[in-house]
Amino acid sequence: MEKIRRNERMSAMMKILSDAPGKMFTLSYFCEMFGAAKSTISEDIDALRQAAKTFDLGAVETITGAAGGVAYRPRMSRQAARTYIEGLCRKLSGTERLLPGDFLYNSDILSTPEIVNQMGRILATEYAQTRPDFVLTMETKGIPVAFATANALGIPLVIARHSSKVYEGSAVNINYVSGSGNIETMSLSRRAVKENQEALIVDDFLRGGGTARGMVELMREFHVGVVGMAFVMSTIEPMKKRISGEKSLMTLEVLAGENPEAVVRPAAWLNG
Amino acid sequence: MEKIRRNERMSAMMKILSDAPGKMFTLSYFCEMFGAAKSTISEDIDALRQAAKTFDLGAVETITGAAGGVAYRPRMSRQAARTYIEGLCRKLSGTERLLPGDFLYNSDILSTPEIVNQMGRILATEYAQTRPDFVLTMETKGIPVAFATANALGIPLVIARHSSKVYEGSAVNINYVSGSGNIETMSLSRRAVKENQEALIVDDFLRGGGTARGMVELMREFHVGVVGMAFVMSTIEPMKKRISGEKSLMTLEVLAGENPEAVVRPAAWLNG
Repeated sequence: MEKIRRNERMSAMMKILSDAPGKMFTLSYFCEMFGAAKSTISEDIDALRQAAKTFDLGAVETITGAAGGVAYRPRMSRQAARTYIEGLCRKLSGTERLLPGDFLYNSDILSTPEIVNQMGRILATEYAQTRPDFVLTMETKGIPVAFATANALGIPLVIARHSSKVYEGSAVNINYVSGSGNIETMSLSRRAVKENQEALIVDDFLRGGGTARGMVELMREFHVGVVGMAFVMSTIEPMKKRISGEKSLMTLEVLAGENPEAVVRPAAWLNG
Repeated sequence: MEKIRRNERMSAMMKILSDAPGKMFTLSYFCEMFGAAKSTISEDIDALRQAAKTFDLGAVETITGAAGGVAYRPRMSRQAARTYIEGLCRKLSGTERLLPGDFLYNSDILSTPEIVNQMGRILATEYAQTRPDFVLTMETKGIPVAFATANALGIPLVIARHSSKVYEGSAVNINYVSGSGNIETMSLSRRAVKENQEALIVDDFLRGGGTARGMVELMREFHVGVVGMAFVMSTIEPMKKRISGEKSLMTLEVLAGENPEAVVRPAAWLNG
């Protein structure tokens, strides 16, 4: 193989690292791939760390020692996060997306990869320090953003279902009170999680908090802790939710009247 | 700002391009970001194209002219794809994952980002030339892989539901015959797609093809064409499906007996 130039090698490393967030690559892995000395790869990594920092593109982290290596972690500055969410709020506010019953049409936003990946990076930045073992969501609309968050954290996604499916094996079921006041069932395969793990709950929408409360109780059945709860959007009303300590990216207020209007705002913590 | 070194600039460009597959960035965008001349950025892009090619990391494509720019497209060589799927088949084969009724436990595989992203890249490589406008899936288990495929293609994901939800507005419903022989309902919001678009169907599992057939009929109601159908896994039995022309990544055969065994193989087209 002809000699690889440093800029090509570094670009390839950046791509490989950022494709697998949180995954630790040994220096030897890159030495072998590029036919380069450890000292060379080590210098490359220092330069990558600098480039990522300069352009707010996340963190290139190195761990020294026998079990050491290098890993990429998506990070988004608070300012970039706020600017991004402000743009989304403008898109969602107004009269056009309001549906009967004060629901807001947002299915398109919640499954457009470019948008969802940014939301995932923001939530991963916020919850990385809590070190969850997996992200938990309840089907269906929150799955893409929960997946993007899990991807950015480098951990698996676990999806609770409305009822246990034969193809998921034996399951734990719980009942919970849904937003509409009905008693519903939430189900998770016994194989999906292990005792003493820690979960980060991610979902698309928080109104009363019934479903979120159900997820917390489901985790209790599995002896799994909950390190945090994050939502794409929460309603201003009711102010009192069945859960506490959660973080949403946006809040939704509906102004009543002849032409009801949605007012979507960035959540207060994004100003901090 | 102090002068940015070429290798840092190129690494940052690679990261920005590959974070938004299919998105066209103008050269001016990078000129401004890095305070560099167009000729400089242009040389950088040539070197990035070479690096991506050398290490099988996808394609860096440039379009010249006023509306031109540069875009990254994930691509995986057929050989790398086959090797990856062979590894997955080894993980899924055997007796441990078999559930009563010849179902295979694969929920973990289907929601682990690292695995799902690779499957998404393989499917995006295979279907990029068909130029779909969006990826369509039916809730729930196929959502992550459909999302990853949409992400790799740089197009939105559209999720059909079992029944129309109030918060998705007016919807088109169709009935279809599910794998278990029941008549079920499939629903999609009117706002979700536009007439004359083209859909790529992606789902986790193909047995008889009833659900897939339902999705094709649903698209017909919207006057949307279907450019392809892709599945993570299809069963050997029944050989005759209700659809044709589909591609699966793996096939599943269950060997009956006292200890039934799952035999999972890479699909034949991966050998081509």
